[in-house]
Amino acid sequence: MKKAFFYDTTLRDGMQGENIFFSTEDKIKIAKRLDDAGIHYIEGGWPGSNPGAEHFFEEIHHIKLKNAKIAAFGSTRRPDKTCDQDANIQALIKSKAPVVTIFGKSWDLHVETIMQNTKKENLAMIQDSVSYLIRHGREVIYDAEHFFDGYKANPDYASQTLEAAVKGGARCLVLCDTNGGSMPCEIETFTRAMVDRFKSHTDVIFGIHTHNDCAMAVANSITAVHAGAAMVQGTINGYGERCGNADLTAIIPILALKMNCDCISHENLEKLLNLSRFISETANVPPVNSRPFVGKSAFAHKGGVHVSAIMKNPRAYEHMAPELVGNKRRVIVSEQSGKSNIEYKARELGVDLGENGMNGHQIVSSIKDLEDYGYEFDAAEGSLKLIMEKLTDQFTPRFELESFRVVVEKDKERPCYSHAMIKIRVGHTTEITSAEGDGPVSALDNALRKALTTIYPQINTMHLVDFKVRVIDGMDGTAAKVRVLIESRDENSIFSTIGVSEDIIEASWQALADSFQYKLSLDNPDKVISL
Amino acid sequence: MKKAFFYDTTLRDGMQGENIFFSTEDKIKIAKRLDDAGIHYIEGGWPGSNPGAEHFFEEIHHIKLKNAKIAAFGSTRRPDKTCDQDANIQALIKSKAPVVTIFGKSWDLHVETIMQNTKKENLAMIQDSVSYLIRHGREVIYDAEHFFDGYKANPDYASQTLEAAVKGGARCLVLCDTNGGSMPCEIETFTRAMVDRFKSHTDVIFGIHTHNDCAMAVANSITAVHAGAAMVQGTINGYGERCGNADLTAIIPILALKMNCDCISHENLEKLLNLSRFISETANVPPVNSRPFVGKSAFAHKGGVHVSAIMKNPRAYEHMAPELVGNKRRVIVSEQSGKSNIEYKARELGVDLGENGMNGHQIVSSIKDLEDYGYEFDAAEGSLKLIMEKLTDQFTPRFELESFRVVVEKDKERPCYSHAMIKIRVGHTTEITSAEGDGPVSALDNALRKALTTIYPQINTMHLVDFKVRVIDGMDGTAAKVRVLIESRDENSIFSTIGVSEDIIEASWQALADSFQYKLSLDNPDKVISL
Repeated sequence: MKKAFFYDTTLRDGMQGENIFFSTEDKIKIAKRLDDAGIHYIEGGWPGSNPGAEHFFEEIHHIKLKNAKIAAFGSTRRPDKTCDQDANIQALIKSKAPVVTIFGKSWDLHVETIMQNTKKENLAMIQDSVSYLIRHGREVIYDAEHFFDGYKANPDYASQTLEAAVKGGARCLVLCDTNGGSMPCEIETFTRAMVDRFKSHTDVIFGIHTHNDCAMAVANSITAVHAGAAMVQGTINGYGERCGNADLTAIIPILALKMNCDCISHENLEKLLNLSRFISETANVPPVNSRPFVGKSAFAHKGGVHVSAIMKNPRAYEHMAPELVGNKRRVIVSEQSGKSNIEYKARELGVDLGENGMNGHQIVSSIKDLEDYGYEFDAAEGSLKLIMEKLTDQFTPRFELESFRVVVEKDKERPCYSHAMIKIRVGHTTEITSAEGDGPVSALDNALRKALTTIYPQINTMHLVDFKVRVIDGMDGTAAKVRVLIESRDENSIFSTIGVSEDIIEASWQALADSFQYKLSLDNPDKVISL
Repeated sequence: MKKAFFYDTTLRDGMQGENIFFSTEDKIKIAKRLDDAGIHYIEGGWPGSNPGAEHFFEEIHHIKLKNAKIAAFGSTRRPDKTCDQDANIQALIKSKAPVVTIFGKSWDLHVETIMQNTKKENLAMIQDSVSYLIRHGREVIYDAEHFFDGYKANPDYASQTLEAAVKGGARCLVLCDTNGGSMPCEIETFTRAMVDRFKSHTDVIFGIHTHNDCAMAVANSITAVHAGAAMVQGTINGYGERCGNADLTAIIPILALKMNCDCISHENLEKLLNLSRFISETANVPPVNSRPFVGKSAFAHKGGVHVSAIMKNPRAYEHMAPELVGNKRRVIVSEQSGKSNIEYKARELGVDLGENGMNGHQIVSSIKDLEDYGYEFDAAEGSLKLIMEKLTDQFTPRFELESFRVVVEKDKERPCYSHAMIKIRVGHTTEITSAEGDGPVSALDNALRKALTTIYPQINTMHLVDFKVRVIDGMDGTAAKVRVLIESRDENSIFSTIGVSEDIIEASWQALADSFQYKLSLDNPDKVISL
């Protein structure tokens, strides 16, 4: 069984995508999820190029990962400098990343016209940089930038650049289709030529790095593996500059299930859908429904002919079982339930679904109705827990809203001023408080906090960490809905809650109230004040 | 030069996509655009399966097309019926479409298990149906459904189904990867095998019909052409069931520009971007920015290394000239951008940086300060243009805010209720208006619109398309800031604006006000009311 390795560059090349941005904290969370899903290499950034990348490497250095090695990315040394003098190379060393991926030029156009360098010095830069990093104890991956365009222009020189990397000690040579313009037949032929050329180096493996400018990044990656490559570089959801990088959410299941490669466990493969969703939520980019394998529509059947055939045999119109990647079949006319998913989740969140109220099927269908409306519980487990408790009559509200009123004022001389009044009930007590805030939600948060703090002082250990708003279903002619996700944190945990409404304040209030209810349910499972 | 033909099925298979719906009127408009862009075949629907399809064929029959032939889609006759008795076949005849595309079963699993038919009767159904339609004067295209899966299961039987079609008189055999699970190497091998098998029939051509379940629909289509196919079936924007069909917006330029096929004129190729936009507008589905060739980001450069290189030679990081498909290069101004990005962007947005006020370096550093504060102009070119104009004393405000006040109320019995009062000044006129809305921003939007509409009636052609909120810098102990991005649209354009503040309403107001200012600056470059 052929071995294959996944190298994720969501945190570096992915962030070159328009509108893709991750904070250092986001990057740490993503790295942990990638590691948990069995990715072999995680590229964290280019430490020489921006300060955000350096913070990531400082933090990740103290975190123990189960599967993945962390890689820092950078270029070969500059012309006519030693590696000791080169700030970029030194930043790579300073990152303490155990793996360093450096890119060098394969295309004589870039060497001579863009960099105004000589071909000879370029070869020396590659060899020196690789060997310097290896002497400093790093595993080095060599990314041959523009390899395919370079090979087309000057096959001999492009091959020499790889030889320079091998002489320097590199044992992984990654062929890059940087501009994304290569055809599968070129990828096949040129990759095979290189595998043949270096076949006496039995310890050298090849990798592939493609871009999606011709809608063929996945196919080109698979074709390269077919031609002998063993590592695939890509990003989750295919995020990346221009049309994006090769999408690992497609490449992983194809290599595992269709190309029969030894690369990921079945258990980790099932995490793929959640990994994809988590990363799109973190990027605050709507997930693409038609995305292969992990999209909401990837196994959705609309055509009448198809639906009746899959009732007889799902393989009739499905190329694989959706559960293998954590997805599920959907029949657009009559939704099928994901009862087992919900039961699994309930166990995980500590809710006993069998106890009271609705039965399993009713709970599933109620949750599905909410999802159809726009709730997305995958990213809001706090609210999911509360809803499961409500549906099974196990929810005890720690407070109840009577009313609120928020006023926001601005005039041309002054910034906005927000002020909230809130009236809540806890047991037989009614509290009326008032507070200012940075905007209406912040004012509401402050007023609610003030109202609850004498009864539940532990509320002060909780604070709002993130607040995301997205307009959903706005295109179909019906009123647009707004989905608010709030992430809150106390000393021990981080939890997410959700609200959906046509009104942004209503949606924010739902998510905010849930975060307080959830926090109080965590801290005081027994001490409940009866309402 | 090898000839290739494009067969568009946006109006039939495309409509199987989740949330894709076209009225008969939409379909007529789309057919005219496809014809105008040089598509060879336009499949209008399945007349036997829904009444909408029949109306389309009635109407299109009276329209003269320049390039395209209209095709009706349907299945072979039912088992044990004659074509004369078969309602589906009769509906195809009745459609008056000059081309009829019928699909038959290639996979014994489908013939025996799903249809509970015999293999022999299936062959007779194919041959009879093709010959009947040809006798009735139609050009027949035979779609071999599930050809690749069928060939894997039983190569001999799959080949016999094609022979039956040829015996019936079909001269175009389309190999379908209906479930989208085939690998490029399988497509290559099986297509080549069929081309060889039928090479004595010199008048028979092959077509390819793929689905994107493995993210390889485009590559599989191109691979089939490489292996000898001459017709590609697909949809504009890749719309279609599950993960979609092969995307013609990628296949057309690849065949024309990379595979050197004789298939489309340069003039028609340049219409591709507008065709893609028109169809996504008609489907009311947001265009995908990262879509190859025609997406807004398809030729957008963010990385500083890339930007300085494309200044020297665009081919350095572009696989082709964007203008060939009607697109254009964009340089994204982001965290990492330097002076050259900003200058490039200013030219693109039509702002002369040298004119007044600050010089180039001061502008760059002012924009960088805003970026450090949390602005992200990468996603807000509307605001970037206004800021460049402000920094160079070229900005003329179309209105000025005096003040606003928003009130949001909720009690436990009722959902939220939002109400805004706004006072603005346009020239010497002061307007005070008041409006309700779904939340405070919506109420403000409505009140501002009401205030401006008598002076600037064109404001009514603009509406808010997307509204995104994100908390930034919330992790470092300083006050969290909120970034609001608003996307607006009028008949001709889509534009994005941004606001950043510690207060969400302040940030929303900035983005909202910018969207109105930007819209008014577009429509009335000269008609400015002095303030």
